[in-house]
Amino acid sequence: MNAQITIAVDGMGGDNGPSVIIHGLELARIRHPDVRFVVFGINAELGPLLSGYPALASVSEVLPSPDVVKMDDKPAQALRRGRKTSMWMAIDSVRNNQADAVVSAGNTGALMAMSWFQLRTIPGIDRPAIAAIWPTSRSESVVLDVGANIGADEKQLVDFAIMGAEFARAVFSIPRPTVGLLNIGSEELKGNEHVKAAAKTLRDAKGLPMDFRGFVEGNDIGKGTVDVVVTDGFTGNIALKTAEGTARQIAGYLKEAFTRSLLSRIGYFFARGAMEVFRRKVDPSRANGGVFLGLNGLVVKSHGGTDAMGFASAVDLAVDMAKANVTDSIAIDVQHVVFGEANERAGTKNPDPATEGKSN
Amino acid sequence: MNAQITIAVDGMGGDNGPSVIIHGLELARIRHPDVRFVVFGINAELGPLLSGYPALASVSEVLPSPDVVKMDDKPAQALRRGRKTSMWMAIDSVRNNQADAVVSAGNTGALMAMSWFQLRTIPGIDRPAIAAIWPTSRSESVVLDVGANIGADEKQLVDFAIMGAEFARAVFSIPRPTVGLLNIGSEELKGNEHVKAAAKTLRDAKGLPMDFRGFVEGNDIGKGTVDVVVTDGFTGNIALKTAEGTARQIAGYLKEAFTRSLLSRIGYFFARGAMEVFRRKVDPSRANGGVFLGLNGLVVKSHGGTDAMGFASAVDLAVDMAKANVTDSIAIDVQHVVFGEANERAGTKNPDPATEGKSN
Repeated sequence: MNAQITIAVDGMGGDNGPSVIIHGLELARIRHPDVRFVVFGINAELGPLLSGYPALASVSEVLPSPDVVKMDDKPAQALRRGRKTSMWMAIDSVRNNQADAVVSAGNTGALMAMSWFQLRTIPGIDRPAIAAIWPTSRSESVVLDVGANIGADEKQLVDFAIMGAEFARAVFSIPRPTVGLLNIGSEELKGNEHVKAAAKTLRDAKGLPMDFRGFVEGNDIGKGTVDVVVTDGFTGNIALKTAEGTARQIAGYLKEAFTRSLLSRIGYFFARGAMEVFRRKVDPSRANGGVFLGLNGLVVKSHGGTDAMGFASAVDLAVDMAKANVTDSIAIDVQHVVFGEANERAGTKNPDPATEGKSN
Repeated sequence: MNAQITIAVDGMGGDNGPSVIIHGLELARIRHPDVRFVVFGINAELGPLLSGYPALASVSEVLPSPDVVKMDDKPAQALRRGRKTSMWMAIDSVRNNQADAVVSAGNTGALMAMSWFQLRTIPGIDRPAIAAIWPTSRSESVVLDVGANIGADEKQLVDFAIMGAEFARAVFSIPRPTVGLLNIGSEELKGNEHVKAAAKTLRDAKGLPMDFRGFVEGNDIGKGTVDVVVTDGFTGNIALKTAEGTARQIAGYLKEAFTRSLLSRIGYFFARGAMEVFRRKVDPSRANGGVFLGLNGLVVKSHGGTDAMGFASAVDLAVDMAKANVTDSIAIDVQHVVFGEANERAGTKNPDPATEGKSN
């Protein structure tokens, strides 16, 4: 039997206040009756809200934190003055092993700065990344980094591949996720040096729980060509926001098309059931949450403007990752690659950590 | 009165053969009755097609070229062995000032390699860029570079801004196009060093015919926040293909939604006029053509799989750019920035090329 999972919650983060968060937790509780919640924030606000959901209250604890990180606080500001905030204290509970993961709908920059500062990166991982779940024609994929960094060298791209694959294993339940490196043109010759070098390392790395498929292009993301799309934070952020912009632009065209004439309005009346299904497919609250990977602790960032259903989806991600113990898996995988590389350079047999020190 | 415009046409390029190209030229001729066409290719194929359009034949000349660049030829291959191809000879006619611009639906890599080799970059411009016209919620914008290069330093980003602004002036008839640099986060602090340095140079550059608006994000492209979006070729290519992928994905969802049930099919029946309008807005053949900027000659790349209407749109771009003399405008603008910089460093008064050498 698994140990009980505890999720730390920043009760004050987000644009819509604690009521959305507590309602979201109630939805999450129904799906995960075995999970405990520790909610950080201002008791006078959280207490009355929780008492509206007796079943949730019975598996939750409110830990008072007097201060709140504002949505427009600068990361450095928050880091310097934020030790009494719900965000800081929620992350701290993960650092202390009092919780398995933290979920916050607060200020992304502050959450990344505090998480990085408190949890530090996993040994062997240079920098954390933000992973996004991307709806595709096939199902869903993971794309990372979508903005924790402004670039990535070869080593970081390899780290991101490992982190993304372990995340996909945990949340999509795929034993060996397919992984692609985002590039321009799928030919071997094209692309920048970091991307080409990372591809070589991933092709040579043995024993990683992933199926590395080489290069993919921008249009492969929406197709769902691979489960995990790896790129640097600059390109990934721009790709993500470009796709969001395109979806919004097309939604605008559609709305215009359906209100253009009486006939088209009649058409919408008949088709509106189907259009609802369509809308749900492109609804960001279904796959809500950027996940911070590479830290010694699990951090899920819910959209600031999320509704209760979206916040519950973010909690789903945290629970799935905690159950799969994604942090330890990443730590093991990354050692594997590092040892593999050192070994190749030295021309010796692979010193597998499991057999190291034994004579053979 | 303007001198007559002559457009050189690669009569053999593209997936659909010369018949689409000749039909496209006929559509373009109707819109531009004052333009001459010189069509390069195999006479036995082009002659009979042209004779089907007597009015087009009267303003066109076929110049025989015995060879054809294949769609899957490698650029280096095409460059080495392609001197007798329709593509090479069409570009050569621009180099010789026998034509004002060249349009080809052929192999993009070969077209770029041959154009760069034959036409060379404009003095002061380091590298050419490929500009794409991007439909937006507002109207259309120019995005560059979308894949001529795999990166860009500060100087190249500034060049791209100048090139994109002159292109927008020519094809959108906007005297001072708004220009934005693609970045992550619109704050001054964020983004990579090249992007930040380019922003500083563009902010300081005086007298350029553009309105520089600083940083834009991925979702600003679809919104049409600025007329010209500047980025490196790696990011631009991935953004373009990601948007294409998203549009195709949503089209797939829509199709599924409309065929889901009898009711939704009835809905589509009533709304189909509006849906046609919608489809035309996202139809790539409306704004067909990547444009190569920064060379001593105008080159328009039509999509390989274009139809006649798409090819005619590509010819429109070539005619608009030739009439506006985009090449000379870029050459003048780029001198302006270089002089401005040198001057700032030396701390002297701006040596405007127009007044240089005069005492004052």
